Order: sequence, then C-alpha cells, then structure tokens
Amino acid sequence: MAVTSARGMRDFLPRDKEHRDSLLATIGDTYLRHGFEPMETPAMEERDRLHSGLGGDNEKLSFQVLKRGMSVEDLHQATSVDELSDLGLRFDLTVPLARFYASHHASLPSVFRSFHTGPVWRAERPQKGRYRQFVQCDIDILGEESSLAEVEILVATADVLNRLGVKGWSFRVNDRRLLTELLSAAGIAPEDHPSALITLDKLDKVGGEGVLAELSERLPTGWSTELVAAVLGGGAPGFEPSTIAGLMGNTQAARDAAVELVAWVSQVVALLPEDSVVWDPTLVRGMGYYTSSIVEISHPELGGSLGGGGRYDGMIGRFLGKNVPAMGLSLGFERLLDVVPSAPLIHPNRVALVMEGDQGGAAAMVLKMHLVDSGHTVRLVSGSRNMRAVYDRLVADGFSKVADVHGSAGDVRRVEDLIWRELG
Amino acid sequence: MAVTSARGMRDFLPRDKEHRDSLLATIGDTYLRHGFEPMETPAMEERDRLHSGLGGDNEKLSFQVLKRGMSVEDLHQATSVDELSDLGLRFDLTVPLARFYASHHASLPSVFRSFHTGPVWRAERPQKGRYRQFVQCDIDILGEESSLAEVEILVATADVLNRLGVKGWSFRVNDRRLLTELLSAAGIAPEDHPSALITLDKLDKVGGEGVLAELSERLPTGWSTELVAAVLGGGAPGFEPSTIAGLMGNTQAARDAAVELVAWVSQVVALLPEDSVVWDPTLVRGMGYYTSSIVEISHPELGGSLGGGGRYDGMIGRFLGKNVPAMGLSLGFERLLDVVPSAPLIHPNRVALVMEGDQGGAAAMVLKMHLVDSGHTVRLVSGSRNMRAVYDRLVADGFSKVADVHGSAGDVRRVEDLIWRELG
Repeated sequence: MAVTSARGMRDFLPRDKEHRDSLLATIGDTYLRHGFEPMETPAMEERDRLHSGLGGDNEKLSFQVLKRGMSVEDLHQATSVDELSDLGLRFDLTVPLARFYASHHASLPSVFRSFHTGPVWRAERPQKGRYRQFVQCDIDILGEESSLAEVEILVATADVLNRLGVKGWSFRVNDRRLLTELLSAAGIAPEDHPSALITLDKLDKVGGEGVLAELSERLPTGWSTELVAAVLGGGAPGFEPSTIAGLMGNTQAARDAAVELVAWVSQVVALLPEDSVVWDPTLVRGMGYYTSSIVEISHPELGGSLGGGGRYDGMIGRFLGKNVPAMGLSLGFERLLDVVPSAPLIHPNRVALVMEGDQGGAAAMVLKMHLVDSGHTVRLVSGSRNMRAVYDRLVADGFSKVADVHGSAGDVRRVEDLIWRELG
Repeated sequence: MAVTSARGMRDFLPRDKEHRDSLLATIGDTYLRHGFEPMETPAMEERDRLHSGLGGDNEKLSFQVLKRGMSVEDLHQATSVDELSDLGLRFDLTVPLARFYASHHASLPSVFRSFHTGPVWRAERPQKGRYRQFVQCDIDILGEESSLAEVEILVATADVLNRLGVKGWSFRVNDRRLLTELLSAAGIAPEDHPSALITLDKLDKVGGEGVLAELSERLPTGWSTELVAAVLGGGAPGFEPSTIAGLMGNTQAARDAAVELVAWVSQVVALLPEDSVVWDPTLVRGMGYYTSSIVEISHPELGGSLGGGGRYDGMIGRFLGKNVPAMGLSLGFERLLDVVPSAPLIHPNRVALVMEGDQGGAAAMVLKMHLVDSGHTVRLVSGSRNMRAVYDRLVADGFSKVADVHGSAGDVRRVEDLIWRELG
C-alpha cells in the first residue's frame, strides 16, 4: 500500500514550499509596514473555548484531542463523546484571536492591529481545493470604533494584492444593518432574519428567482416580495446615502448606515483606483457575528472569493467580559496561490558543483563555502554517467549554472578558476 | 477565571513573534544557501505511522486525535483507548520526514537535502523551559552514503550559528559503533547494550562513579569495569585513529570506525575554527535509531545542548521498504532563543502619525500610504491627553519617530511638510 500523508492533508515539495513561503513573506511584510503586528496562538485551544458558539458551522468540523491517560473503564463509563476530549485544534483564527486578546489586552496597545497567520484544521470531506489543514492569513483591528479601521484594512489589503501581482480583484462591500432594515421593511420578523440571510447568501448559486422561491417556502406569508426583489434585481443604484437607503428599507437606521458606508468607502476610493470598491446590496457573508461593515474580495477567475471579513463588535466581549470594537479580514491563502503568478523559475545565484574523482567532495566543500559566503546557493552533485538527468533536475530546481570540481592533485581550488556552464 | 492559552502552550506577543520569525528566517535562508531545500509535512500523521516504534519514548507523549462521528455506544463497545483515534499530532519531525520521503522519493533528487521546520507537540508535564508545543528545525541528507553528509551538515549548521551571532558553541562528536565496540570488549552482551547506553548517557547527571554503580546494578556480573572507567575518566586522548580505537575496545571494527570519524572530522576542522569540533567518547545521544556518527551542539551557558543529530541509515527503510542512507541534525529552536542576542529595539523606518482633529484620520491615511510606499512601517495613533503613555508604547514597539497630522483646512498633506520628533 502506498505510504501517503493523512487524508485531506498535504505535503509540500520544495518548489511548492518555496512559493508558499515567498507569498507569506510578502503578505506579512506588507501588513507589517501598514502597522499590523505579527502574533501567534497555539494550534490547540481548550475545547470549551472553541465550542463557545462563535465558530458557526465550523465548530462541528473541529478535530478533538483525546484526554491523556484514559483507561478502557473511563470509556465504558462515559456518558458522552465530549467527555473524552479537553483540547481541540483551531478551525479558524478568529476565535483564538478573541481568546488571545482577552488574555493579553493589558500588554497590548489601546488600538491593536494584529497579523495572525498559520494552519487551521477542519474535518471536512476532502475534495478538490478543500483540505483538512490549510493556511489562513487574518488581519484585525481591535479597539478602533471609527471606520478608520475599515479604511486601514482595505488599503493595506489592496497593497498586499498589488505587491503579489494579483490582477483584476475588487472589494465588494455592504453593511449588515442595511440588510436588516430591508428585511424589516419587507415585513420579515426579526427572528426570521438569520434564516432569510442564509437564503439571500445563495444568490450566486440559485439566482434571484431561486432566492425568492426559497424565502417564500421558509417564511410565514405576509412579507413584501417587491422590496426584496428590487435588491436582488442586480445592478446597484447610485452610491449616495439617499439612494442606498431608499433601496434598503428607507428607514432612519438605513439612512444612518448608508451615510457611514458612503463615508468610509469614499475614503478608500480616494486612496485606491475607483473601481476597486463596489457596493453590493446582496452581499451577506455567512458568519453570524458580523454587526455592520462586511467585505469580500472577488476575482474574475474564481467562483468563490479571495477573502473577506467585516466588523464584529460584539465578539471579543464574549471572552473578555467587556465589549471591544473589532474589524477583521481573512485572506484566502490557498486561493491566492491559484491567482498569483509563480516566481521566475531560474535563480541566477543558484549554482551547482559536480564532484569528480575520489577527493572531489573535499575540494568542492571548500569552494562551496566561498560561494555561500559570497551570496550563492550551492548544491553539490556527484558526477554520473547520466549527467542529462542531473542537469534536468538542477534546471527544474532553479539552478542557473554548474561547474566541475576534480579531486586529484593540481586541481581547481579557487572560485575564480571554476569554469561555469549555463543550464537550461 | 483568567482566560489563558491551553496548558503548556504559548501565545507570542508581537515583539517575541518578530524575534522568533527573524531567527527562523536566518536559519532557513542559511540552510537554503547550503543546498538544503524547504519542505513541509502536515501537523497530523496516521496514528499507526506515528506509533511505528521509531519515536522512542516520545511516542508515549503524542497527542491523539479522536475519530469523527463516534457515538457513546462506540465508546462502550471499545476494547482499547487506541481504537478511538486514527490520527496523531507529530511529536518530532524525523518520523514525518521518513514518511514524506517514502511518499515522494520518485520526485526528489537522488541526494535529497531537506530543511524541515514547524511545531511539534508532546503531552509533557509543563515546566520551566518545557512546552507542549514547540518548534523544531531539522536538516537531513537522504541518499548520501559517504561522510560528505556529515561535513555538509556540520558546516552549514556552523554558518547558521555564526550568522545568528551565537558565541562559544562547539560540536561534540562520536560514533555509535565505537561505543558498541567498547561495550563488547568490556564483556557486555549485545542484548544489554541499549540499557548500558541509556546509563552511559547519564554521565552529565550522575558522574562517572554513578554510571559505574548503575551499570553494576543493571548488568549481569563479569564485565570489565576498567575498560568503561577509562572512557568515563574524561579528557579525550589524542585524536588519531589508533588512540581512539585503543580506548574504545581496540577491535578491527573500532579501528575502521575511528578512521572514518577522524577523516570526516578533519575535513570539518579544515573548514571551521579548530576548537569548534571536539571528540567526546562518552557522547551517546538518546534515540535508538542512530547507527554511526552522532553529534551534539554544546554551549557554555546551557545545561543541555543547542541541538544534535546523527546518522540513521536504517530508518527510512521502515517506511520505504528499501534502505536509504540518512544523516540529520535538529536545532533546538527554543533554546537558541535563549542564547541569541535580541535584535536592536529601535527600527529607523518605524514611524508613527498622531491624528489630531476630526479629519485627522483621513489626512493621516494619505500620508501613511506615501510613507509605506517609500519603505516605512507606519502606525496611526490618536492624540490623547496622556501622550507620554502613547510614546512609551511606541518606543517599546521599536518606533523611532513621530509626527502630528491635523485634519482641519490648510493642514499638512505632504510627507515633506511633516515635522518629525525623535522618540526614546
């Protein structure tokens, strides 16, 4: 039987690993420049913290860790499977961040801009593009009430996407409060809003007719199809507070939310190309914890998004005991890999030395040290009958040139005497 | 109750995280230059692979992951705790590397030099300096039979330690075969060797007398105390094959091993300062899988070592089905942190903008973008009554200067008009 990695979890061979590391370095460096600070949380959290209801459906997908030192008798006396587990692997970075902030807020600046990256684990059914271990890259601003948080997060993320060379992306933005006002104005009771939002979120999949049909099925009668249909119709109207509010329920609360949305989006648009932000009145974002601004990064080549986030002012309080305003965005690292052009294959500083003769290795080691000291990446290879295969491998691994090193008396021992051959 | 990270697992605040990331980047970059290739394995492996007997005592410390979708009935019918778990968190990087090589050897060069880093997990009793999640940094050379592997690994690791600014380190080296020959010559039966080696390994803790006493207790009588005592006496004799072999059993096999040891150590010493390699006839290294060369990095400020490794020619075969020569070294990342001088605290490119007035944020965002574009790291802070506390925080976070940005009409909007104040 083939020896493979665990189901749904991937190994990364050197070229893939280099590409991933280089992307992560650009992301981390760019966010750092924009004032976001790197921090880290462990892979595991206490089980009860992970299962505090903030992770939505993802909680159900968490990997549970067995308590240590259990006996068969313990199993036989257990009254639920949950008793066997005291720790779980994190399924996102948001719940651990909230826990981290509650643990360390006294040591953090009053406005804390975090950059948090690392693997998360979900026991999903493995399929193309969906893995049981994958990397998330989150930025969050905790403690900033004003929409400066929205502006900083979008501007920094735009810089990341540009530095990575991603083309054609745009931010779709909306405000949860506008959706709430729309649903209320349409006569849908507050307790039915969560279910209605889940249905609205299916617009991409089932279309406007499909959404209306499902709403009719799910909701008690008596609500106004027209108001909802106008929003689903597509094509956002002019981006002015009165037009926005007019479409989204036309209440005072809708007008207030629209004024705020227009204000911060205008600030972002003043700093970025104009078409990089688009208001999408049908944008919902799945997680229940979002309270106002929501955002998603769309890309023409992807069905899904490149990432997204929003404001979740009520969540930190669940761990800390007092509310802290919070806005975050998560970059879909595994999807970014699909749209970021690969780095150039050949690195001019990667050179190989072919060891010939008994003492070729010893001679090559001396030269290798000198070459490394002068900034080269050096690989030693043995001379063989099939040098074609050796060279092909070097080219595939990005090496640009090669030189022979013989080990017998009177041989090359100085870097300047090496005779280089170009590869590829 | 305080909200903390899970027991024995650590959060890292921004300054610590930056220091860790910077060390890891230097380690990875240096090994890359020396021809080692980055690769990655997932955090979890199939349980049976982890528990194949190659991890020694560490296997017992592994965190087990609960199978998904189990019911209470499943628990009640279980005949052992092991049945509940199909996956485990890796407790080292060596077992996953062997599995990785078995999975991918056809896509790897015939001599594969790997750089493998990441967290590992062990359910140890937490104590000072011992954690349940910690980072390992391993390099390995798979497929190289000759001691060029030993030379490359030690030379590259010396370069890493020097680039990190570590002072006073040295390699202690030995060969497992010399120890085996010594024990055989002293009349200790092969089946008692593993137990005798465990006792020898306690020399640092219990001293020469203690080791001899424990050996007498553990072993059947009839072995020669004198031969063993001569080695424990301390002070290695001259580093020549005949002297070495004379001390270590004086057999033909001891002479062969001594010739090899002297040959590769001489090569290393020719490339590094002479006192950077020391033969220690009492060096054992705990893991059972080592077959010949063993090495440990000692440091005067540390009781334990900064890392170590050795040749384990038999291990890859356990997964692959055919033997592959292998030599590896693991850097103790968490210990390195104790001896690596911290980076300078103040970064000249870190600047802060103080937002004053209603529109201060909007004005500051424009300037922030320009400053980031020109290579600065920028943090926005709000003007407050207690600017002393704000400045102290900026200094602690490595910021070198600060300027005010007012938001009302006619204000500074150009970077060149900002008036900088030095911090600290």
